[in-house]
Amino acid sequence: MPKVKMILDLDTGVDDALALAYAVGHEDIDLIGIIASYGNNLTSVTAQNSLDLLDLLGQNDVPVFYGATHSTTTDDFTVMEVSKTIHGQNGVGDVLVPKSKRTISEQSGVDFLIEAAHEYKDQLVYLPTGPLTNLALALEKDPEIGQLIGQTTLMGGALTVPGNVTPFTEANINQDPEAADIVFHQQDKLTMVGLDVTLRTLLTKKHTAEWRAIGTTKAKLYADIMDYYIDAYYNLDIDKRGAALHDPLAVAVAVQPDYVDTMPLNMKVTTDKETGDYGRTIGDTDQLLDPCHSQAAILVDQDRFVSDFQNMMKKVLA
Amino acid sequence: MPKVKMILDLDTGVDDALALAYAVGHEDIDLIGIIASYGNNLTSVTAQNSLDLLDLLGQNDVPVFYGATHSTTTDDFTVMEVSKTIHGQNGVGDVLVPKSKRTISEQSGVDFLIEAAHEYKDQLVYLPTGPLTNLALALEKDPEIGQLIGQTTLMGGALTVPGNVTPFTEANINQDPEAADIVFHQQDKLTMVGLDVTLRTLLTKKHTAEWRAIGTTKAKLYADIMDYYIDAYYNLDIDKRGAALHDPLAVAVAVQPDYVDTMPLNMKVTTDKETGDYGRTIGDTDQLLDPCHSQAAILVDQDRFVSDFQNMMKKVLA
Repeated sequence: MPKVKMILDLDTGVDDALALAYAVGHEDIDLIGIIASYGNNLTSVTAQNSLDLLDLLGQNDVPVFYGATHSTTTDDFTVMEVSKTIHGQNGVGDVLVPKSKRTISEQSGVDFLIEAAHEYKDQLVYLPTGPLTNLALALEKDPEIGQLIGQTTLMGGALTVPGNVTPFTEANINQDPEAADIVFHQQDKLTMVGLDVTLRTLLTKKHTAEWRAIGTTKAKLYADIMDYYIDAYYNLDIDKRGAALHDPLAVAVAVQPDYVDTMPLNMKVTTDKETGDYGRTIGDTDQLLDPCHSQAAILVDQDRFVSDFQNMMKKVLA
Repeated sequence: MPKVKMILDLDTGVDDALALAYAVGHEDIDLIGIIASYGNNLTSVTAQNSLDLLDLLGQNDVPVFYGATHSTTTDDFTVMEVSKTIHGQNGVGDVLVPKSKRTISEQSGVDFLIEAAHEYKDQLVYLPTGPLTNLALALEKDPEIGQLIGQTTLMGGALTVPGNVTPFTEANINQDPEAADIVFHQQDKLTMVGLDVTLRTLLTKKHTAEWRAIGTTKAKLYADIMDYYIDAYYNLDIDKRGAALHDPLAVAVAVQPDYVDTMPLNMKVTTDKETGDYGRTIGDTDQLLDPCHSQAAILVDQDRFVSDFQNMMKKVLA
């Protein structure tokens, strides 16, 4: 398989940090840049986190770009308390990752995405793990990218299970339902990797103990970061058996689609605040008989993925 | 394939009338009885409709039983105005079907179901096309049938598309969410054939014109009944392209599962009136890693089904 050109759009975040490590380690992925989003923390914080983690992993040639700092329907953004509880005040489990000497790129993330879409076309995989604001802004600026990007695989949404913010909406979609609805309607070759599958992929402290045992600085720091997240899952009673590998699963699916079963479905995101299901990702009845431009992951081979993920982490952290 | 023993639990109802005809015509189905439910009309009306239609189709040896007359959480039942608009005041498109000389059986539908489960076990297919009240009552009286019944295939629910009563709930489930939740938890080998697939199977007046051309009384009456329903779909703007074959699709899937793609999923029905999604059929996060006892139809080979359905109707109505 020729390497794909991948752009990660991260609101780093603990599981974003895992997605980054997984992408760095995967032999089929050429990580060409990271766009920073608001979400688990402020864009300024998530951008710095990504930069620091890249350097920690020895990837100091991958550029990081600033994306949007707030949703398409708001003028600013405040980090939700629950985000701080799950990801730590600093976004990476309150672990001190050594500060990179590099700086964030001056080009905007949205422009970087548009340029890359034109340059790489079918080869480009765009992978957002936070709000879909940056892609919506890029589509607004250059609608052509809706057809140009080879594959968009997003972590977000919930189709066959309840949401994690309300019974209807998942956290990433919830940050900017209007942007998500634009993306679900306009972006071709879209795969949604939502709670339907990610909640089935659980990592435990048994796994992080194996990372810690590697003995490198990066392995210890990643274990500390992930343990914070596992503790939060336990303390908030999200899942006492382990913490979900939301974002890395999306990266894995983008290059190894056979981890999941998908269903073809044209979806919409509810943007009507009167219907009580604001931010719901659901099939669009009006498009039920139309050709499908998107699919939703509904089942996952969780044991195989968690095992492969663990092997990947042990390689990357060695 | 040996014939299955099928019990239809109908709130007849236009598409219930189609399901009945389809079951009567299918060579793999031995229709052993019909239980009447409230829903599209009162139980007394739907029971009589089923009896009259059986006689019209020359099936005067199939018994009809009274089921529940109201939900498990109410003391009575009033037909919704929209039900009358879609199915006619009399449930069968205000068409006068000749009255059967037979009478409704004295045994209760719930007891008939329990007896049949013990007698036929794996051979028994139970097929409700209305509220799930009768099965919930039977499970309460004899929990063993949850394991005994060979296959339960229900028309109802909506998993990957919005509901048709609210954005969350489908009409059959909406009649008795508490009963549906009992069924989804306790009934083994359960297949949900919901709006996800039934809204994709549309019948038109081109099809009913072919029925009418057959020239028999039953063909003319069935065409009149169905045309009422197609008109209602048009006038209420449910679908201007045709009317959905909800109930007959469930019957077809019960004996020819390859009409649909299903996903294994342990589901629940929301019974909390505070969460805004009362009556929603959705995956149960608490059971996401458990073995699956139920599945949901998510895709359908609509062209093949509609074509096969039409051929079946032309055979039955000849």
